[in-house]
Amino acid sequence: MMYHRGAEFAAIVEEVTGRLKHFFQTESDVFVITSSGTGGMEAAVVNTISPGDKVLAVSAGKFGDRFAEIAETHKAQVIRLNFPWGQAADPGVIADALRTDPDVRAVLVTHNETSTGVTHDLEAIARVVSTTDALLLVDAVSSLGALDLPVDAWGCDVVVTGSQKSWMVPPGLAMVSVSPGAWDAVARAQAPRFYFDFTAMRRSATRHFTPFTPAVSLFYGLQEALRLMWAEGRDNIIARHARVGAHTRAGVKALGLEILPDEAYASNTVTAVRVPEGITPQRLRQVMAEEYDVILAGGQDHLADLIVRIGHLGAVVEADIDDALEAMAKALRKLQK
Amino acid sequence: MMYHRGAEFAAIVEEVTGRLKHFFQTESDVFVITSSGTGGMEAAVVNTISPGDKVLAVSAGKFGDRFAEIAETHKAQVIRLNFPWGQAADPGVIADALRTDPDVRAVLVTHNETSTGVTHDLEAIARVVSTTDALLLVDAVSSLGALDLPVDAWGCDVVVTGSQKSWMVPPGLAMVSVSPGAWDAVARAQAPRFYFDFTAMRRSATRHFTPFTPAVSLFYGLQEALRLMWAEGRDNIIARHARVGAHTRAGVKALGLEILPDEAYASNTVTAVRVPEGITPQRLRQVMAEEYDVILAGGQDHLADLIVRIGHLGAVVEADIDDALEAMAKALRKLQK
Repeated sequence: MMYHRGAEFAAIVEEVTGRLKHFFQTESDVFVITSSGTGGMEAAVVNTISPGDKVLAVSAGKFGDRFAEIAETHKAQVIRLNFPWGQAADPGVIADALRTDPDVRAVLVTHNETSTGVTHDLEAIARVVSTTDALLLVDAVSSLGALDLPVDAWGCDVVVTGSQKSWMVPPGLAMVSVSPGAWDAVARAQAPRFYFDFTAMRRSATRHFTPFTPAVSLFYGLQEALRLMWAEGRDNIIARHARVGAHTRAGVKALGLEILPDEAYASNTVTAVRVPEGITPQRLRQVMAEEYDVILAGGQDHLADLIVRIGHLGAVVEADIDDALEAMAKALRKLQK
Repeated sequence: MMYHRGAEFAAIVEEVTGRLKHFFQTESDVFVITSSGTGGMEAAVVNTISPGDKVLAVSAGKFGDRFAEIAETHKAQVIRLNFPWGQAADPGVIADALRTDPDVRAVLVTHNETSTGVTHDLEAIARVVSTTDALLLVDAVSSLGALDLPVDAWGCDVVVTGSQKSWMVPPGLAMVSVSPGAWDAVARAQAPRFYFDFTAMRRSATRHFTPFTPAVSLFYGLQEALRLMWAEGRDNIIARHARVGAHTRAGVKALGLEILPDEAYASNTVTAVRVPEGITPQRLRQVMAEEYDVILAGGQDHLADLIVRIGHLGAVVEADIDDALEAMAKALRKLQK
């Protein structure tokens, strides 16, 4: 491994950070943290809130709930605004909630809810939040890099993503942006933090280092992945994901299957498919894995017996989806016999 | 990457955990966290202390200071017991401090102080702490796996190490053990934690998973490294580090140079060498790197202008040290001209 306090590694951090800012569409700070995406979400919370702060947590799935739980763990006064799993958050209802509680300090939102395959209308939600003094903290773990998310233009204050998603790198890195408004909150926030402290990250970033030993080998991967993404182009990547998402949904419907969410909010990075009556998702996944070498994710919590999920973010094209759906068709025929 | 919620990955976690317990010499829980060693140190603190708890932080270097800072960040009432950098902590003085403050809830100790090349007498310190009700939290980031540290026999409650040290894996994983006594503290501890929560780790560990997406590729490395270590044997590895450490110190002295610490406490994983007057450590490191391709670490904080550090942990044998010292001799001759 390269020495992480040397010029060679600093050059990687500088290149990676510059390219991440392009994909985040931000002029603000972007940091790479050695942790999973959840660590990045905790960083967003502990750097901007104080115990007792009122926080509005918008959720329609497992990851929305997790964001709320993190804020509760750190003693925020969390108002949970839940929408049914599989539906999109309604910006009008969020606006009402913010009118009812004008002293909300931060709004927590999931851009792409991986557990249900829903992409919330973050642009509209951000517009609502921007009319208040609240910060907007965004879990973009499974969206940023694949779905359009102009961080500065929409006014998102802290945005979190993870290396293993659109970035095509093994898991272990979380990437976060911090807006000027978020920095004001950092200066006031009383939640204790050490490993996840943004101020320490900013101090080290002036020399293109990280405050603590980073996952060096994953930085090599991120550097290479960002070069590939740079070559393909941000808009082209977003367009490809839109195309592959539509292709997946059309293919699922052609098999006579239903998609969990309303198509207007169906995600272009993951598709949640209702498994037909009489077949369990567990059995379908098992046959697809063992006989056709195709790995799907199951549903989580109360969706475990209802859905399977097809991931299509990162290095995925239509032909990959065709292979997966062909395997699914064969497995279903076998199980329906 | 392997799916981190599948049977294949669970088998890796099970194998890795079992072997780690052997090297930790413990029957208690061992968890692998995706973070640097500092994240593991923060995990040790937040899982066992509450704001206001009295904590004794023993320090004689940068990493001892860091452990104290983490506890202060989480609002413990920290009693700092400092020894001069380059010296070993005196167990008798620690005993006195614990008699003066019998309500200390936890003692924080660095086993091997990487910043000064000192190995503290953890066995004697642990004996002192065991006569009290205090927990013993150990930063063993740069010792465990290379130096003898029988976690259960010495009664260490939380012990933290890092993948990039003795384990010969790229950085990005922290490994921690948690004793039954520490679990009692976890049940009471009020410091907020989410990503670093031991209870969530224990829940996932029953199925050989991690609570959040782990750095899968680093687990592959850890699995392989532990197989190599298993083949060499724990006692043989410890003996090799003792041999290489002594070899390094003898070689340094043969060059007419001085070792920073008293040799009785000199570390077998890193040697801090005083740079002769008239030469800066920075310049010595630069010449060695550029002309001989040998990378040494510098000193930190007030040791920056005094020392260089030779690392010798992991896959290192006497011949590697001879190469490094030959380069050092040539660089010194060049700079002394």
